[in-house]
Amino acid sequence: MTEPVELRYWEDFPVGFAAVHGTRTVTEEEMIRFAREFDPQPFHADPEAARETVFGGLIASGWHTAALYMGMFVRSQLLGSASMGSPGVEELRWLVPVRPGDVLTARSRVVEAWPSETNPGRGTIVGEHEFVNQHGEVVMRLRARGFMARRPPADG
Amino acid sequence: MTEPVELRYWEDFPVGFAAVHGTRTVTEEEMIRFAREFDPQPFHADPEAARETVFGGLIASGWHTAALYMGMFVRSQLLGSASMGSPGVEELRWLVPVRPGDVLTARSRVVEAWPSETNPGRGTIVGEHEFVNQHGEVVMRLRARGFMARRPPADG
Repeated sequence: MTEPVELRYWEDFPVGFAAVHGTRTVTEEEMIRFAREFDPQPFHADPEAARETVFGGLIASGWHTAALYMGMFVRSQLLGSASMGSPGVEELRWLVPVRPGDVLTARSRVVEAWPSETNPGRGTIVGEHEFVNQHGEVVMRLRARGFMARRPPADG
Repeated sequence: MTEPVELRYWEDFPVGFAAVHGTRTVTEEEMIRFAREFDPQPFHADPEAARETVFGGLIASGWHTAALYMGMFVRSQLLGSASMGSPGVEELRWLVPVRPGDVLTARSRVVEAWPSETNPGRGTIVGEHEFVNQHGEVVMRLRARGFMARRPPADG
């Protein structure tokens, strides 16, 4: 017998729902790889040139930091849910530079939630997401909307 | 003789400054590659599974769309400027799904600009950025802050 997969719906993420999505180390290699493709500013893509900048060394592209967070959040939470995508982000703050070897922990909590007025099968969730480094500093904070399917009525 | 590179400073990006940063096609292969690493939701990473979702087929991760935009913006504008990084994004909207083969044009304009009150060598620029597809639809819009060095006083 196969254990049925219990999908989580909009109703399963009320305001206050909080979770940690894991911890990972960010390497210089992956920072440079991302930056060369998507954000080739010297302080993201070139360790030598980065030393001469205001940052004094290589820092991660903020878009890389956001993408790394998303990878952890999706694998930890969204893949087990009835996610229907996202219309966008309210606010995204890069608060502290992310440097090679930093160890980042991803955490989120639901700060708003409402059912759709036009689509009875859907609700919106607003999550506040934080990436925290090994010194306890919040390096990135974002508030994003997500669409989620509502739990279908139980079978008769 | 080498032509001196003319770096652009905060003063060179007044409110109203607008530019187009190029046009590019988004392929299914790169969409899947990004999604597998950073956003492995079925509608981003798996063309088969994507057909069964509300999107009816593969769509780009919104973080991929943002990263693709950034790559074009950096190469077109930021690399020739005295960019000092960004504290964040005010708003990021994914308005229309991006699908394989879409042809996206990147454009931006400066909507606010002010000098730093604490650092005489720095100013802030707020840019509004849009990615427009082959049908003329704005698929992504974002408003972001950027720090930029101010033009140094002319020599003697």
